[in-house]
Amino acid sequence: MERLPGFRDFYPEPLPNSEAWSADARQYIFGKWREVARRYAFREYDGPPLEPLELFTLKSGEEIVGQLYNFVDKGERAVALRPEMTPTLARMISSSERNYKKPIKWFAVPQLFRYERQQKGRLREHFQFNCDIFGESDVSAEAELIALLIDTLRSFGLTSDDFVIRLSSRNAWQEFFQQRCQDESKAYQFYQIIDKMEREDPAQSKIKLDALGISADEVTTFIKSGTPTAELDLILKNLTARGLSDFVRVDYHVIRGLAYYTGVVFEAFDKKGEFRAIAGGGRYDNLVKLISGGKVNLPALGFGMGDVVLLELLKARGLMPKFDSHIHAFCLIEDEELRPASLELIHDLRDEGYAIEYSFTPAKSDKQFKRAMELNSAYTIKLERSADLELTVKLKNLRTREEKILAPGDLHENLG
Amino acid sequence: MERLPGFRDFYPEPLPNSEAWSADARQYIFGKWREVARRYAFREYDGPPLEPLELFTLKSGEEIVGQLYNFVDKGERAVALRPEMTPTLARMISSSERNYKKPIKWFAVPQLFRYERQQKGRLREHFQFNCDIFGESDVSAEAELIALLIDTLRSFGLTSDDFVIRLSSRNAWQEFFQQRCQDESKAYQFYQIIDKMEREDPAQSKIKLDALGISADEVTTFIKSGTPTAELDLILKNLTARGLSDFVRVDYHVIRGLAYYTGVVFEAFDKKGEFRAIAGGGRYDNLVKLISGGKVNLPALGFGMGDVVLLELLKARGLMPKFDSHIHAFCLIEDEELRPASLELIHDLRDEGYAIEYSFTPAKSDKQFKRAMELNSAYTIKLERSADLELTVKLKNLRTREEKILAPGDLHENLG
Repeated sequence: MERLPGFRDFYPEPLPNSEAWSADARQYIFGKWREVARRYAFREYDGPPLEPLELFTLKSGEEIVGQLYNFVDKGERAVALRPEMTPTLARMISSSERNYKKPIKWFAVPQLFRYERQQKGRLREHFQFNCDIFGESDVSAEAELIALLIDTLRSFGLTSDDFVIRLSSRNAWQEFFQQRCQDESKAYQFYQIIDKMEREDPAQSKIKLDALGISADEVTTFIKSGTPTAELDLILKNLTARGLSDFVRVDYHVIRGLAYYTGVVFEAFDKKGEFRAIAGGGRYDNLVKLISGGKVNLPALGFGMGDVVLLELLKARGLMPKFDSHIHAFCLIEDEELRPASLELIHDLRDEGYAIEYSFTPAKSDKQFKRAMELNSAYTIKLERSADLELTVKLKNLRTREEKILAPGDLHENLG
Repeated sequence: MERLPGFRDFYPEPLPNSEAWSADARQYIFGKWREVARRYAFREYDGPPLEPLELFTLKSGEEIVGQLYNFVDKGERAVALRPEMTPTLARMISSSERNYKKPIKWFAVPQLFRYERQQKGRLREHFQFNCDIFGESDVSAEAELIALLIDTLRSFGLTSDDFVIRLSSRNAWQEFFQQRCQDESKAYQFYQIIDKMEREDPAQSKIKLDALGISADEVTTFIKSGTPTAELDLILKNLTARGLSDFVRVDYHVIRGLAYYTGVVFEAFDKKGEFRAIAGGGRYDNLVKLISGGKVNLPALGFGMGDVVLLELLKARGLMPKFDSHIHAFCLIEDEELRPASLELIHDLRDEGYAIEYSFTPAKSDKQFKRAMELNSAYTIKLERSADLELTVKLKNLRTREEKILAPGDLHENLG
């Protein structure tokens, strides 16, 4: 019995095979995401992994359906496993924003899904760190969001040698377009060309731009100038005040393909250019209005960071820790008469928060010790009855091999 | 735009409406689950939320399909959103058990799904704490698992006045049945009658038992006796050694409806009998063999604990904390000249792990202070320039109203 193609099993480390993903690494990444969001005073939310199909087509058009893991459910509803979190978030905000003071700063760690028939071997699910701010028009919100993104990557040990935030502006490109082309219906087509320029043959891009009556040279000159707009300048100054100027640069190559961005946009890239974008986001001031059917209008901005590229990058830079069971002590039970007293001791230590392991059934002394070593336990503990029939504990530090004889009540002070 | 029926939105507290669920409460519960599992040296795993339909029908028969959130995907595969974790776990163990030392002690916190057409208003998803042990036949493993279950409930502040583990034995009932009925094909039917006895009219149960040629009086006498089998006696002694005897009692009413249990079974109930079972589990020694197509044979046992009944119980007993943003300090920016220096201070404090909030844009002093109070911040901090142009920080404890003037570098020592 096999799992479905494109889905992952997450195993405890050490991993059993090359196909397995690490549940420990996943929890490590989720833990850092939550920790940095908490420092930035972002609150966690979540929504259903399954939503009405219409929620996603409303935002992205009918053409998104070809990429969705969608189906008709037993109640004849057209539904889809969520491909992104933003529509769900906009739905939740639309219905409940009046109960929250602005600006609203929220994050989530959803699993997201897609289904494209043609792409064999590609993952059909991943996890994403989503951070969003609602109710703030000022670009100080962009600076806060980008600082959070930078500090999230820093929390894994990545430095300004490893990654950079490429900052750009959909408005700047919009202005550029409107000065050169009067047909507003072509704007999205133009953004798509800019979005693909870095990966595409320049001659090909030129043909497409010519068709819109836009000069490829002018596009190139604009990108090369890298002159910050007034908005981008404010963001750069704000980030500089925080000591984060090394982590960000203006780069008009970035435009974000999605139609719904309305202002500043940004992407995080590894500096060696080995990986796809680590994260991306921007301002989307019209989405809440769209999703709420015009009832609620709130400025909004956000970013998403996936677990897959991040994990690849952290591995490549040697920044993923190895994980084991993190046992504090393995309790050796050599005299079965002392099993009940050993179980009491184990229970007391676990109650104090220590992770304790032991052999369920009678086992040879060297076999128990070997198991303690395999588990990378910090200590072994062993109850013994002394000559005067008092219970004592022999504590052995498996790193230093140092041994101590203690009264059972003194043990917890000596467990690192 | 509405969410699908039976699914939940999880919001930050305070909750915006009576329909909303608390994302904070969910994370609190997940945190306790993971923490106690870690103390018991259980390792986390996860699998796909979507699996081949066959994985579930193989374990539970075709009749399970009526309760599943199943569909045919774009690749013409019959698939289902997982209704339980055990089949996925058995699949993972079957393929990889050789890489792990026995006993294997694993846990997961999956979201599970079901779809029964007739039940309106019922949740179609919930989260479950799943703990399982593989590779141990001895009932010391049952004792370990039940101790973990008890300590998980204790970690929320529940006591032996609040809940009890009802311990029973599928083997004892099997023996009872075989002594009175030779037709083994009726065994599952018999277990179903016992499973429903507590909720059903006794006359109705008697009619069903009569049809199997089994005396209802003998069943009642057996249940009333409550005499532990040799296995159950060992488990009780083991739990007593851990100081947990008050939390468990033999109760043969419990038999667990599912067909796949093979030995000891147990359920956790609130003592007032107000709620459905909080948790349930038992031994299922044949499942790995079944799922692996006979390739792997490993004894197994486990339990599951859902988030919904647990949360209802904790609320009813006044054991759910209130949650807020847990801000350490709100940084007041009254002089816009000091915004860059304030941003630097905020960033330094966040880097040290403190949760800091501030106003993105210029705002009146009393409005900023009000926001700090609404957020239940522990402190306010405010950069000021003293007469000799040195930067100082005014730190105010919002509980005690105590104020201090500090050098910026001394601040972190004074933030609780």
